[in-house]
Amino acid sequence: MDEWTFINWLREHAGRRSDPRVKVGIGDDMAILDLAGQTVLLGSDMLVEGIHFDLGKVSARQIGRKALGVCLSDCAAMAAEPSAALVSFSKPKSMPVDVLQQFYEGLVEIADEFDCPLVGGDSCAGSDQLVVDVALLAVSNGVGPVLRSGATPGDWLYVTGKLGGSILEKHFSFVPRIREARRLTANLPVHAMIDLSDGMSVDVQHLCRESHCGAELTETLLENVISPAARQLSDRTGRSPLDHALNDGEDFELLVAIGLAPQDVPALPEKTDLFPVGKVIDAQGVHLVTQAGTRRPVPPRGYRHF
Amino acid sequence: MDEWTFINWLREHAGRRSDPRVKVGIGDDMAILDLAGQTVLLGSDMLVEGIHFDLGKVSARQIGRKALGVCLSDCAAMAAEPSAALVSFSKPKSMPVDVLQQFYEGLVEIADEFDCPLVGGDSCAGSDQLVVDVALLAVSNGVGPVLRSGATPGDWLYVTGKLGGSILEKHFSFVPRIREARRLTANLPVHAMIDLSDGMSVDVQHLCRESHCGAELTETLLENVISPAARQLSDRTGRSPLDHALNDGEDFELLVAIGLAPQDVPALPEKTDLFPVGKVIDAQGVHLVTQAGTRRPVPPRGYRHF
Repeated sequence: MDEWTFINWLREHAGRRSDPRVKVGIGDDMAILDLAGQTVLLGSDMLVEGIHFDLGKVSARQIGRKALGVCLSDCAAMAAEPSAALVSFSKPKSMPVDVLQQFYEGLVEIADEFDCPLVGGDSCAGSDQLVVDVALLAVSNGVGPVLRSGATPGDWLYVTGKLGGSILEKHFSFVPRIREARRLTANLPVHAMIDLSDGMSVDVQHLCRESHCGAELTETLLENVISPAARQLSDRTGRSPLDHALNDGEDFELLVAIGLAPQDVPALPEKTDLFPVGKVIDAQGVHLVTQAGTRRPVPPRGYRHF
Repeated sequence: MDEWTFINWLREHAGRRSDPRVKVGIGDDMAILDLAGQTVLLGSDMLVEGIHFDLGKVSARQIGRKALGVCLSDCAAMAAEPSAALVSFSKPKSMPVDVLQQFYEGLVEIADEFDCPLVGGDSCAGSDQLVVDVALLAVSNGVGPVLRSGATPGDWLYVTGKLGGSILEKHFSFVPRIREARRLTANLPVHAMIDLSDGMSVDVQHLCRESHCGAELTETLLENVISPAARQLSDRTGRSPLDHALNDGEDFELLVAIGLAPQDVPALPEKTDLFPVGKVIDAQGVHLVTQAGTRRPVPPRGYRHF
């Protein structure tokens, strides 16, 4: 059973009862709740030593930044505004407390940058690995929320930055696109959004499946969003830069379906990177239109959790 | 550095900025937030295989129940009403998916009992141990919230059930005291509350420290709240039943400071166990008045996380 099969099982078993409080449950970047007329969003992300990071290779401060950063990226995908975060961790007994303090310094640093107070959590000692789970509460505050499920045939697909090769640096230094998401959503007909954490080829499938539509990506457009890191990594791996841009995870840019063609997108109040990569179509699956004009399926080759 | 020293460091470093949204941050059973006039509560609890449970000794279903149950017990300590839960887990790659499904069946079972939808979370595979973190969103909905910090000298201290020996069974079969907490708070002058997770001797200190007061427990009263399991365990350990009642963790009953003496507590709409154990006093520390009439300090000997 792969992760998506499991999540589908979970949706059926855990989310089977309708509840007036739950507007969006399992399956989007965050859940959306209606609490006595107030819309709030809730999501969490877990990082595990040895899977998501290696304490020998990155600093505890970087891990702290990333632990909250990935949650803030989910929040960006909903165009929501962070309200508060909880941090739970379990650490090996041997881990010195000053490493934990550096971890929290990274957390507090990015929490301050996004005006998101840390309000609680839990702590344990005695696990083999450092495990961190961050839960984030957010509000729409007049903008959004934007779901994965709102894309419509005819929408254009855009990304907010260059893709691929994040493992060289960006997976620890990315900036959650909260400001960009809220600016785009406040000013443009944004129909659907997802953050690119598993890799473009996987995440575009998620967006399409939830929106009951397909996507046609254009190679000439994708060429413009290949990051320098993807090209650098390509030299080492022998895989094409495009392959890296499509299939590397943890770019933490947004994939946005907007009901406007590139030439019709107005100038935004502040400069906001927005690169067209293709269109939403009334069909199933994701295809790539190559520079040669041929059309081939894009298999989901990004990160798989199970 | 022990857990409490670390949490104090964290309170200073993570919670140092005042934020109009944060009514209560790190340090109570849940955080309290004010989102545009709506009060919401947020808390999380992490369980780790080998620390909190052993998959050879309990079923995955029981672990699922407990994972949400401990969060619901925190919610009870605030007299709050659960709104939604997030579940994040990391599992060993070798763990069969059906074990995970049993885990979720336990979770869904208790979620249904407390009308608390599961709305999201995260999943990873590749850790040495099963690690679960549950985050809970709750609302006050006209009752409470009750803090740890509201106890006043002259209040009586009560517990909602018998204490000690939970390791024999109750630490996996406890019932979160949400209904009791809301009934007590709606009907009586409840000034402060905490759930007994680390052990009475530790948790009463938490309540006293947050309330800037002391407590005097009465041995003759405590004799009435020693559980059969505490007596049974005493036979094996040679420690007194009272020692078990005071120092065993995971009873998940509530310790409640109420501004009424036992003889003045009116009958409640539904039967609610409430046993007096002592009084809040205008002093520091926690003392026990023995049956012989002597007075001795109660050292905090419950579960320590670090």
